[in-house]
Amino acid sequence: METVTLKLQTGDKRPLYEQIYRYFIGEMEAGRLKEGEKLPSKRALRAALGVSQSTVETAYGMLTAEGYLRAVPKSGYYVSAALARAMPAGELRQTDEGEDRPPRPPRFDFSTGAVDTSLFPYASWARISREVISRDPQLLQRGEAGGDRSFRETLTVFLREYRGVRCEADQIVVGAGIEYLLSVVVRLLPADAVYAVENPGYGALHRVLRSHDRSIRPIPLDGEGMEEDALRHSGADVACVTPSHQFPMGVTMPAGRRSRLLRWAEEQEGRYLIEDDYDSEFRYASRPIPAMQSMDSEGKVIYVGTFSRSVAPGIRVAYLVLPRPLLGRYRQVFGYGASTVSRFEQQTLRLFIQRGLYSRHLRRSVNLYRKKQELLLSGLRALPGAETRGTEAGLHFLLTLPGRDEAWLTARAARADIPLRGLSAYCLGAPPIAGTVVVGFAGLRIEEIPDAARTLVQAFAE
Amino acid sequence: METVTLKLQTGDKRPLYEQIYRYFIGEMEAGRLKEGEKLPSKRALRAALGVSQSTVETAYGMLTAEGYLRAVPKSGYYVSAALARAMPAGELRQTDEGEDRPPRPPRFDFSTGAVDTSLFPYASWARISREVISRDPQLLQRGEAGGDRSFRETLTVFLREYRGVRCEADQIVVGAGIEYLLSVVVRLLPADAVYAVENPGYGALHRVLRSHDRSIRPIPLDGEGMEEDALRHSGADVACVTPSHQFPMGVTMPAGRRSRLLRWAEEQEGRYLIEDDYDSEFRYASRPIPAMQSMDSEGKVIYVGTFSRSVAPGIRVAYLVLPRPLLGRYRQVFGYGASTVSRFEQQTLRLFIQRGLYSRHLRRSVNLYRKKQELLLSGLRALPGAETRGTEAGLHFLLTLPGRDEAWLTARAARADIPLRGLSAYCLGAPPIAGTVVVGFAGLRIEEIPDAARTLVQAFAE
Repeated sequence: METVTLKLQTGDKRPLYEQIYRYFIGEMEAGRLKEGEKLPSKRALRAALGVSQSTVETAYGMLTAEGYLRAVPKSGYYVSAALARAMPAGELRQTDEGEDRPPRPPRFDFSTGAVDTSLFPYASWARISREVISRDPQLLQRGEAGGDRSFRETLTVFLREYRGVRCEADQIVVGAGIEYLLSVVVRLLPADAVYAVENPGYGALHRVLRSHDRSIRPIPLDGEGMEEDALRHSGADVACVTPSHQFPMGVTMPAGRRSRLLRWAEEQEGRYLIEDDYDSEFRYASRPIPAMQSMDSEGKVIYVGTFSRSVAPGIRVAYLVLPRPLLGRYRQVFGYGASTVSRFEQQTLRLFIQRGLYSRHLRRSVNLYRKKQELLLSGLRALPGAETRGTEAGLHFLLTLPGRDEAWLTARAARADIPLRGLSAYCLGAPPIAGTVVVGFAGLRIEEIPDAARTLVQAFAE
Repeated sequence: METVTLKLQTGDKRPLYEQIYRYFIGEMEAGRLKEGEKLPSKRALRAALGVSQSTVETAYGMLTAEGYLRAVPKSGYYVSAALARAMPAGELRQTDEGEDRPPRPPRFDFSTGAVDTSLFPYASWARISREVISRDPQLLQRGEAGGDRSFRETLTVFLREYRGVRCEADQIVVGAGIEYLLSVVVRLLPADAVYAVENPGYGALHRVLRSHDRSIRPIPLDGEGMEEDALRHSGADVACVTPSHQFPMGVTMPAGRRSRLLRWAEEQEGRYLIEDDYDSEFRYASRPIPAMQSMDSEGKVIYVGTFSRSVAPGIRVAYLVLPRPLLGRYRQVFGYGASTVSRFEQQTLRLFIQRGLYSRHLRRSVNLYRKKQELLLSGLRALPGAETRGTEAGLHFLLTLPGRDEAWLTARAARADIPLRGLSAYCLGAPPIAGTVVVGFAGLRIEEIPDAARTLVQAFAE
């Protein structure tokens, strides 16, 4: 790239990094910045524009995270060939719904999106499916936009019992996956709303917000989750949080922080919290903590959950609990459409829950995942000085080797044919902890875990 | 409403009707215009703003069509209570996916969205479902964003055979319904693209475009479909058309108009046609006409189709065929997500098609619908002077009683406990034909049709 003709507008209310970020996207879309072309170095751009290092880092971080740029170690940033290819490498692409499978299965699957489906009760599911299809011809007809009434009634009971969520059936929207439902939420809120997102965080959320041209403010995390002061100073209207088990840091947000974030939302009309109840089903160390939604008396929390991980990723059923103030707008914009989830599957899942098969399946899954995590952690104890974080819940944890470089760790793992992601893959800017990789364990078969742990320990040995 | 403080901006590149339309939405959203409040009369607004009658009519028509306003005959326009209620009355809400059922079934169901599911081969579907669930545990894992590869391969063959559509599997995106897929398309095209829509036309398309804050230009139709000159003068970038069977006019677009619209798209980079292949499956009078997509050699047609009407509305499977130039952007924005359709249903439908069950079901359905239409048309011949339009295809037609007022027709039908929609319910502005109602017949049981026709004829008798 020869020249950067970007004039930063101090009168522009968008932050400087967003102006830089949008400038480069515009250049790429206009074809002035082409595939493979090198961008100015961070240092050069910083000097040319007279901005701080973190401004440039955040902008480049966002562009890399969204697959526009590719960072080449010791060389610089290049326009990603991704723009014209199927699966760009190295982008922020974890989701709560599982990662896409690599073309060749790795030696050990440490991906964070995998789910163990070996316990899935096929026979029961198939039997209920058949029962549903044969019994009710009305299910062939179009159903309500938000989902079948009977299924939503079941979900209100389910959510109250499992998550402390208080709602009525008309507040529930059943939809085909979290990403679809986030796109619904974004269209219910004003187009100029600014979204605070956790950094590091959930890549799919970025993609949805970007696809709707919404403004994003990455907010750093501390040991309790999204930093309240940073949120306050960000100018955001909507804060997107994962209080149950933050991805990828694994933090569970304590009650104090939850109520302070709620207060933030209550202070101003138009402020909302989007609570993605990620991984709330999988807790090992303590009792499940009720959802933030249960503390909300002012209609400020938009609650999102999914059956992708607790039932199966191939079955597309997620749900939204809308606060009452948004129901009118929902009906206006989406009320005339049809649900995005097949009624056969809504009804199969309803009976699966009502007959106690869901809770049995979840109990067995949690036990299995707990065992897998224990085995893996115990194997990794052979790594001198290794630290782990976020092990109380979820299907992944962080592994830190103090004094090691993240790139060194992922390179060594790759040499042993184990694809591992560094924490920085999920960060805009520098990662909050050095020498850290993200380790998923749901995709490992229990019998291979000792060997997998040993292989990793050897890979990281001098 | 006491005062209108709208200043029309001649420098604003948006048309005047859109400025008026957005002004009133803004007033409603800000709470300055409340439920039940009366708007200025068209005449008064026209005088106050110094604009033409059609400008005001188009703006009020759009607001009514989208459920913001309610037109009260001989009184005026009121802010719809719909904004805070579940199902506003009288709005543009037909979809290709079926109308929502009224709370109490009407005496005869003449709705345009109904589908006859009595022929659906439950036993085969249930058997294949079970086979799919039991056979392939991999289906529990997350699938590709655009849909299972094997299902997309089947669809390419299917679309070539049935619709002449030429594409490869990577151009297909399987999704949970037309509205979802339109929302995907809108996010692939630039945010400032202007959309030409057929007037009268398909309400769901409006809602999707509005939910994304896209600019809409309603284009009138002539006997061949969307008027080319009006399209050219509209400044639109994307034209949304239903060439197989226009809803609600029932026009099939002839080859000449198709190629002229294609030429329009080819003349400028960034122009596209969205071909909604609505009702192409149901042709009575002639052989199916290949899709417009089959004539497209420049990658200008975005093709959309659905199994909602040919299989069942309760099963949510629709598909998109993207032109190659949009694939890069699709992968960038959506490629990392999961498909919105359950893999079990993708695979069940795949086998349903491959084993010839789909084509048999469609053949039987077309025969049944043809019989229903014939019976109804023959019964309606007792109406002196009645004209019908759009009977060569689809599950509805237009019924015109020259010299009659549309409101009179719908009121008389309602008195006989038959809810019927006038053509104007689907129009922005005045309807192109007076005294016309839209008559669907798929929801009528064949044995009740003679009685239904008789009841309608009596209702319309002096």
